[in-house]
Amino acid sequence: MTAFAGLSLNQATVQNLSVPEAVELCVRHDIGAIGLWREHVARTGLAASAACAKAAGLTVSSLCRGGFFTHADPAARAAAIADNKAAIVEAAALGTDTLVLVSGGLVPGRRDIGLARRLIADAIGELVPVAQAHGVRLGVEALHPVFAADRCVISRLGEALDLACQFPADAVGVVVDTYHVWWDAALLPDIARAGERIVSYQVCDWILPLPAETLLGRGHVGDGHIDFPPITAAVAAAGYAGYVETEIFNQTIWDAPADDTAATVAKRYPTIF
Amino acid sequence: MTAFAGLSLNQATVQNLSVPEAVELCVRHDIGAIGLWREHVARTGLAASAACAKAAGLTVSSLCRGGFFTHADPAARAAAIADNKAAIVEAAALGTDTLVLVSGGLVPGRRDIGLARRLIADAIGELVPVAQAHGVRLGVEALHPVFAADRCVISRLGEALDLACQFPADAVGVVVDTYHVWWDAALLPDIARAGERIVSYQVCDWILPLPAETLLGRGHVGDGHIDFPPITAAVAAAGYAGYVETEIFNQTIWDAPADDTAATVAKRYPTIF
Repeated sequence: MTAFAGLSLNQATVQNLSVPEAVELCVRHDIGAIGLWREHVARTGLAASAACAKAAGLTVSSLCRGGFFTHADPAARAAAIADNKAAIVEAAALGTDTLVLVSGGLVPGRRDIGLARRLIADAIGELVPVAQAHGVRLGVEALHPVFAADRCVISRLGEALDLACQFPADAVGVVVDTYHVWWDAALLPDIARAGERIVSYQVCDWILPLPAETLLGRGHVGDGHIDFPPITAAVAAAGYAGYVETEIFNQTIWDAPADDTAATVAKRYPTIF
Repeated sequence: MTAFAGLSLNQATVQNLSVPEAVELCVRHDIGAIGLWREHVARTGLAASAACAKAAGLTVSSLCRGGFFTHADPAARAAAIADNKAAIVEAAALGTDTLVLVSGGLVPGRRDIGLARRLIADAIGELVPVAQAHGVRLGVEALHPVFAADRCVISRLGEALDLACQFPADAVGVVVDTYHVWWDAALLPDIARAGERIVSYQVCDWILPLPAETLLGRGHVGDGHIDFPPITAAVAAAGYAGYVETEIFNQTIWDAPADDTAATVAKRYPTIF
């Protein structure tokens, strides 16, 4: 029923666990891959994190995340580029070929959204040779427009793709995250157009009401309003053959026992098809 | 500096006022037009509302709102069509040629967003002859994707326009509301493409953080992140020559003295250019 590699648990879903704890959780629940976060990796140590996943036989499906490129201030911009270069090196050390990018919102104190977009394209251009040298692909993630002002001015998959296509396909791709793009009338044709530029497929559901902290308004697959099967079919038809990451930011889920969360994630996974 | 007719106060901005009170407020602040809401008009009475605006020399720039078409249940669907026909008649009686449509979210209990879109197109098709008979244009409003599940699956101006263009231009147009569409990379070309299909230009600002009740997260022009001048210039260049409605849903603004609100609206209006 699928050419995908299988289910991956994005570590953000079990925010309270360290890398070794999250790895053990995946093993207990027969989840073959994990998406790691830099903060957690830093806490455990890069080499220790890589060794831990490897010893458990887990694939690291992606590293989250680089980005936040929208600085007009030269020092802040240089710091962002340096940090992203470090993230590429970390991704390679962890054995994943995918670094997810959250590109950044409006430039601080500015309303010019075009300026923010140009700064992102310029920054990615600087990172491309580094990504190629390390065999890592940068995954431009379109974020829901509710985050356009403060987190990411790239709001639609098509826009992420147009940006990615300015660069070689071995260096820059796009992330399809159902939470961010489900509402878009052009989603299915844009997925088809993305083809092998798709470097990651992430799933979680759009639930209502939104919580006060908009970032945390995500639900388990099936608890909300997203029609997953047509999106999954389009991603598969586009040629994506990697892991499907479940990535859920939700305080209630974070507060729940991680084994319950992993069990629900694994149980719901087949319903995306 | 503009070919617009001038500033209009949308009644939603001063939610606590009746039609006569809102009309008097506009007169006190030299605001030449008002956008009315059906609930308020019903409370004052249709004929009394029309007479009140006319006696004050105010133009009614629009009536809010029709829509909510996304019912699969035949009875609910028939009720929605009947209600929208009544709204068209009310708009004509109030002397406005514009009925704003909020088209509706996902069909209750369904996740098929394409179904919701088809129901909207079908409903508008039924309303077109009624709109033409009464000299009223239906304004399809794209709502921010944060409202896609529960209020409106038409999320982008371009999508609203593609829908409108299935019908005669004298019957169906589009509403440009900065709050809903500011983030869209295709906004300026889509405004140009909309041309004389634009039936209303509404302004308010995108402020952060969002309140728990997402609907109420709007700010006075200038208090948030939207870059108004390029949008306004595009709307003017497209040929729109009507009123610019300030429409703000915000509990703090509703709780403020209405004269303060109207003064701020009037004072900020020139900054959109």
